[in-house]
Amino acid sequence: MAVIPDLSRRLAAEALGTAMLVTTVVGSGIMADRLTNDVALSLLGNTIPTGAILVVLITILGPISGAHFNPVVTMVFALRRDIEANASFLYIVAQIAGGMAGSLIAHAMFELPIIEVSATVRTGTGQWLAEAVAAFGLVFTILAGLRFRPDAIPWLVGLYITAAYWFTASTSFANPAVAIARALSNTFAGIRPADLPGFIIAEFLGALLAMALASWILTDQKPATQALNNLKGAE
Amino acid sequence: MAVIPDLSRRLAAEALGTAMLVTTVVGSGIMADRLTNDVALSLLGNTIPTGAILVVLITILGPISGAHFNPVVTMVFALRRDIEANASFLYIVAQIAGGMAGSLIAHAMFELPIIEVSATVRTGTGQWLAEAVAAFGLVFTILAGLRFRPDAIPWLVGLYITAAYWFTASTSFANPAVAIARALSNTFAGIRPADLPGFIIAEFLGALLAMALASWILTDQKPATQALNNLKGAE
Amino acid sequence: MAVIPDLSRRLAAEALGTAMLVTTVVGSGIMADRLTNDVALSLLGNTIPTGAILVVLITILGPISGAHFNPVVTMVFALRRDIEANASFLYIVAQIAGGMAGSLIAHAMFELPIIEVSATVRTGTGQWLAEAVAAFGLVFTILAGLRFRPDAIPWLVGLYITAAYWFTASTSFANPAVAIARALSNTFAGIRPADLPGFIIAEFLGALLAMALASWILTDQKPATQALNNLKGAE
Amino acid sequence: MAVIPDLSRRLAAEALGTAMLVTTVVGSGIMADRLTNDVALSLLGNTIPTGAILVVLITILGPISGAHFNPVVTMVFALRRDIEANASFLYIVAQIAGGMAGSLIAHAMFELPIIEVSATVRTGTGQWLAEAVAAFGLVFTILAGLRFRPDAIPWLVGLYITAAYWFTASTSFANPAVAIARALSNTFAGIRPADLPGFIIAEFLGALLAMALASWILTDQKPATQALNNLKGAE
Repeated sequence: MAVIPDLSRRLAAEALGTAMLVTTVVGSGIMADRLTNDVALSLLGNTIPTGAILVVLITILGPISGAHFNPVVTMVFALRRDIEANASFLYIVAQIAGGMAGSLIAHAMFELPIIEVSATVRTGTGQWLAEAVAAFGLVFTILAGLRFRPDAIPWLVGLYITAAYWFTASTSFANPAVAIARALSNTFAGIRPADLPGFIIAEFLGALLAMALASWILTDQKPATQALNNLKGAE
Repeated sequence: MAVIPDLSRRLAAEALGTAMLVTTVVGSGIMADRLTNDVALSLLGNTIPTGAILVVLITILGPISGAHFNPVVTMVFALRRDIEANASFLYIVAQIAGGMAGSLIAHAMFELPIIEVSATVRTGTGQWLAEAVAAFGLVFTILAGLRFRPDAIPWLVGLYITAAYWFTASTSFANPAVAIARALSNTFAGIRPADLPGFIIAEFLGALLAMALASWILTDQKPATQALNNLKGAE
Repeated sequence: MAVIPDLSRRLAAEALGTAMLVTTVVGSGIMADRLTNDVALSLLGNTIPTGAILVVLITILGPISGAHFNPVVTMVFALRRDIEANASFLYIVAQIAGGMAGSLIAHAMFELPIIEVSATVRTGTGQWLAEAVAAFGLVFTILAGLRFRPDAIPWLVGLYITAAYWFTASTSFANPAVAIARALSNTFAGIRPADLPGFIIAEFLGALLAMALASWILTDQKPATQALNNLKGAE
Repeated sequence: MAVIPDLSRRLAAEALGTAMLVTTVVGSGIMADRLTNDVALSLLGNTIPTGAILVVLITILGPISGAHFNPVVTMVFALRRDIEANASFLYIVAQIAGGMAGSLIAHAMFELPIIEVSATVRTGTGQWLAEAVAAFGLVFTILAGLRFRPDAIPWLVGLYITAAYWFTASTSFANPAVAIARALSNTFAGIRPADLPGFIIAEFLGALLAMALASWILTDQKPATQALNNLKGAE
């Protein structure tokens, strides 16, 4: 009987976390874009808050829901049977709803129309490859982090996204729920709704590739504590 | 009999910490504003020092006073009966006095008039919503952090404020004592005294909302160590 | 019999890690260079992602291969007999191949010709001294880190490179495999192939110097836990 | 008999650490200044490397010498009898010599005259107050950090200096050995030799004030582990 309130808390944590993540991504994009004409500086003003809030959100909500905030991550855990199929579906609904709410909150704070439709074109093979690379790296980081240093996951994800905002040509959305929410904002962080399918498909493919690699490279290893002693690369 | 000197040390720690926090917020704002015409760069030069000093101050003064440095945080702990009402009142007095001193020190270093009255307009529903969101996030971060990772609180607060400076339309004051001190500085970080009440009310409302959410979502959970094993989102 | 798959995983980890490192160095350089005309901002947009991804990659791949990603580091461990000569040769091959792949991936994402030849001149005694200093600092950081705080190595290396990008006149390549890969990219991070030998020789010399210093200054010390108690500098 | 080699290693660590610190301060200042005309961006390009290298140097050399790198810090430990008077004198000599070497190395890398005399005026009551505040904060951070979280000292000092570069009007030299070395560089980080005495006196006064405050506020407290449980500010 205790399972239902537990699931409701988990779903609330997923919605809250995704909302705060999107508020940060969209809000800091608006702030940066208003304050400067230098686009690199805008991206920096978008990157640092996003990386920082990810460390916070995963630390404080991870113990409740696992802090997925991302349908691609939930799918990977569902395929690994770390989360039951039923809950995973509800997780994704909560993430999408939370992400949309996050976009609305950012718009309300900055006194923009509550909902917009983004006109920012983000398409083409370079962008799709970038999203696949971004999601590959994110999922591999999570799976390898869980294998060797689960306590470090909040930092690993925050730092990975900090880097991926710059090394991918797409600025690393890497998250279908966040991508949908960003389609509702015609600001720095926006994406044209017509470009969503390409991004989302690429993200799922990248995630599956990371899962395949992880299932090979992370198995048949010595336990984490012993492996840490190997840090010097000894045989 | 040992209680009175102990309380005096706690109050000194609150005053010192709030002073150093305000010196950082106001001083780095003056420095950044003098060195560049790009406002995004000024905000970055204001953000990085503020986030960094919060990690330091909470780590070194937390063991003495709890490192509130913020009347909203003290109110929350008083409502939770984590601090007695009498001490909480003195904490808030120390925070306001320390904050004012911090503003004076920053002005003296930069050879400005010791006390100014800020003329920076910060008002309107967007700004008030932003302050409520900022304080909500700060208090929720602290309460969830205390529940799951109390040793990580300094980093969580530093990183949260780093993000909130950018994702809120108000640059996240989130602290009535700091807001009052900033009203005494007609520089980058200033706020017109007439705009203080709106900010302070919004901050208290955001904090109460965070407290209400925390009282539901953080209860009836498994202990932290066990919950960490759930990081993968397993049932 | 289990050794061969183990070595194959280690080599895959070295190739993957060096590839992701080069994708980050080259990709973030392209991104930053496209978004701004201010070269200091480009270097900042190159520095922050590189430092961040190093913390991630060393944390998640260190337990598999030791996370060298750098022929100079592999050479040092081979000289110390921490890795057998045979494996060390294969490590270096994997690093160079992975680095080249990383450059290709960055170019594909940003829709540039897959392979370019860099025309960026980086030569002269100042540059060579800078590379020797960069590699000296990197190797000494790793050896002293392994001696006193092996768990902190990912952060130490990420922070060291963050600093060295700015304090060395060469922006701290400090890695022959990454240097070769960067010769294949005519972008912000590139280096003219003719300038590679000078860089690579200087890097090996700096590494050997660090090894010599470490063999003296790190020996005959008290164990790490006891030494930590000496942090105050007591006799 | 084992004491003399031990002291020689400690002195080498102090010289090496101060040299690398000054190379970073001066070198990153030259790099930033060459790449941009925006002085705030130059200061950021000076701040981030300095904060990063401090975390590294204190972590890897702290177990050998205590990682003072600063005559003011050595004086404080000598007054506390944490280091014998004789060694403290040699420490300060090693720091000054190492700092000078660091300035030379930076100049050699950037192909400047090996020794210059700085012409940068840094004087006046605002600057002196700033240096006193900077050294006060640094020494108090170290003493309180040693009291409650000695393992966190590298991060605390790195983050403190990151903040102090911006919140003090003097950009926080806070270190006589580094100040002397910076007088030998007519670049971004320089200081006119005639202005050294004012800076150095202010730094020692700030340090003594921090020591006095620490001797009151850090005593008669409960042990650190118990105090951590007080993080909520409970009586």
